[in-house]
Amino acid sequence: MVQYVIGVDLGGTFTKLAALDRQGKVLGRRKVLTGSHEDGEKILANLASVTTELCRELPDRKPLAVGIGVPGILDLDGGLLVKSPNLSRLEGSPLRDWLAEALLCPVILENDANAAAVGEKWLGAGRKIESFLFITLGTGVGGGLILDGQLWKGVKGRAGEFGHLIVEPDGLPCGCGGRGCLETYASATGIVRMAREAIGAGRPSLIRELAGEQPDAIDSELVGYAAKHGDPVALEIYRQVGRYLGIAITDVVNLLDLHHFILGGGVSHALPLFAGYLRDEVRLRTFGIAVEEIRIMQAKCGEDAGLLGAGYLALEMVTTRGRTLSGKG
Amino acid sequence: MVQYVIGVDLGGTFTKLAALDRQGKVLGRRKVLTGSHEDGEKILANLASVTTELCRELPDRKPLAVGIGVPGILDLDGGLLVKSPNLSRLEGSPLRDWLAEALLCPVILENDANAAAVGEKWLGAGRKIESFLFITLGTGVGGGLILDGQLWKGVKGRAGEFGHLIVEPDGLPCGCGGRGCLETYASATGIVRMAREAIGAGRPSLIRELAGEQPDAIDSELVGYAAKHGDPVALEIYRQVGRYLGIAITDVVNLLDLHHFILGGGVSHALPLFAGYLRDEVRLRTFGIAVEEIRIMQAKCGEDAGLLGAGYLALEMVTTRGRTLSGKG
Repeated sequence: MVQYVIGVDLGGTFTKLAALDRQGKVLGRRKVLTGSHEDGEKILANLASVTTELCRELPDRKPLAVGIGVPGILDLDGGLLVKSPNLSRLEGSPLRDWLAEALLCPVILENDANAAAVGEKWLGAGRKIESFLFITLGTGVGGGLILDGQLWKGVKGRAGEFGHLIVEPDGLPCGCGGRGCLETYASATGIVRMAREAIGAGRPSLIRELAGEQPDAIDSELVGYAAKHGDPVALEIYRQVGRYLGIAITDVVNLLDLHHFILGGGVSHALPLFAGYLRDEVRLRTFGIAVEEIRIMQAKCGEDAGLLGAGYLALEMVTTRGRTLSGKG
Repeated sequence: MVQYVIGVDLGGTFTKLAALDRQGKVLGRRKVLTGSHEDGEKILANLASVTTELCRELPDRKPLAVGIGVPGILDLDGGLLVKSPNLSRLEGSPLRDWLAEALLCPVILENDANAAAVGEKWLGAGRKIESFLFITLGTGVGGGLILDGQLWKGVKGRAGEFGHLIVEPDGLPCGCGGRGCLETYASATGIVRMAREAIGAGRPSLIRELAGEQPDAIDSELVGYAAKHGDPVALEIYRQVGRYLGIAITDVVNLLDLHHFILGGGVSHALPLFAGYLRDEVRLRTFGIAVEEIRIMQAKCGEDAGLLGAGYLALEMVTTRGRTLSGKG
């Protein structure tokens, strides 16, 4: 009988899940709408039913455990979501215990970016790297820290909020209540905002031609396309992305002496457009560490990073002997 | 026979050393001039001779090991100083191996702020705290990270450079080659610079009265004295110190989810002058963590933190069974 875990990536729009064996081989998968507009119990009932359905296809109907990556701030002890702009209906509900009861197996929660960092460590770009920062550049900017082969969760499980490193002390207001966080500049949202500002200010640009007269049609892919075609406005936007990412990465280098940074999320595909600016900042600003020692890499697990990592954490939870991602222990 | 180690704090001006038993009790100590203007071999010969002299007073003339805290960037594998503005004569010389041969015992090197962090964990303000950042506010700004009871050294032993977190991307040039590092604002050097600028700009201030017409007479204690007496210029300077420290501490909270910060060094005594401003920034900027959860504390080991920590690291090196500062293992 093949033993397996279920790894879940519970997103604001889609829920992706997969049954994984101990080596991380996908034995079956599902992708469904999360239904985040519905009430909390309905969202959880949907998740339980699609999980049960997936398990029914497998030789053993009972998974060893279920791991769930969730966007937002978690209370790991209580097993609930404290704050989640994209899954606000689930805030405060006893996510972990409800699902454990419904699925009759242990359930573990983790922040989605932290789970993705674990996924990249287990089966992706971080396999052979003991310590790195995983960075996700999407609608927002998130992160997950792997230190000595283990996820660094912090004192209360809220570590890895790389998007809220401060890169402009008097900068733009951020959704977190602060100002000038990296996320306001280096996310897809930040890119679109900068593009709309430039167009609104009347700057001639390929972006305007591509979007017609509809600012709503501007997304980060469109800005990326314009930059690849040499549009000065779009190139300037990616210079800002690279500059601010370089500043925040330098902070991490100087504080933690990490040398590897793995970039995932939609905006990471534009890395060639901003890698040079990023490295310029690192070269200027790191203390006692040469820019040549710093590796900026693309993630390898793509959209699967989160569910793979969540599955790994589930596996780790039910594996009696201490295991680490580096195979020690 | 009492077994002991020697902990050394090798500073640019003074060298302090102490013989310590396994509980950290000081069995004897010395404070001598480092003689940092002399050539490297002379500095080391002085250090070896004062160490030998101290050991001669003890029942057993041979220490178990010697630990040395050194200001600058170290090559831990090679046992040498790579870069040290205050001990430039020792750059590149095989510090560790030379001393191990002269003293006939194992020698371990560590960055001075990292050593002080270990000292505060062992016997100071961090005794009961598993994870914290030690911050030293002196001529420069340094740091040392204790994560899960252990010193976090980083990939190449260069972690903890808290003073080079970037708080103003286009700020003042820093000695590291970057711009707007915390150190340019929150160090004694930064405080004195801000005071001289204000006086130079003709602002009326108690600082001017205290210093007479001699800008060279201004030091950070004088600015602290003026602030305590309500001088608006001096108070504004400490507001800047608090603001920028708050920004850098927020970066650490958001990245690592640490809740404890232990402040040492001369400027830390002025904490009451800037703690409020510091907390205002943390309140505004932390993500998902309330300011009430964050503790900003004064260090307890004073000038001994470095030599105590260096001694602990020496003890740890020669203790066969794995020990951690938290007493586990």
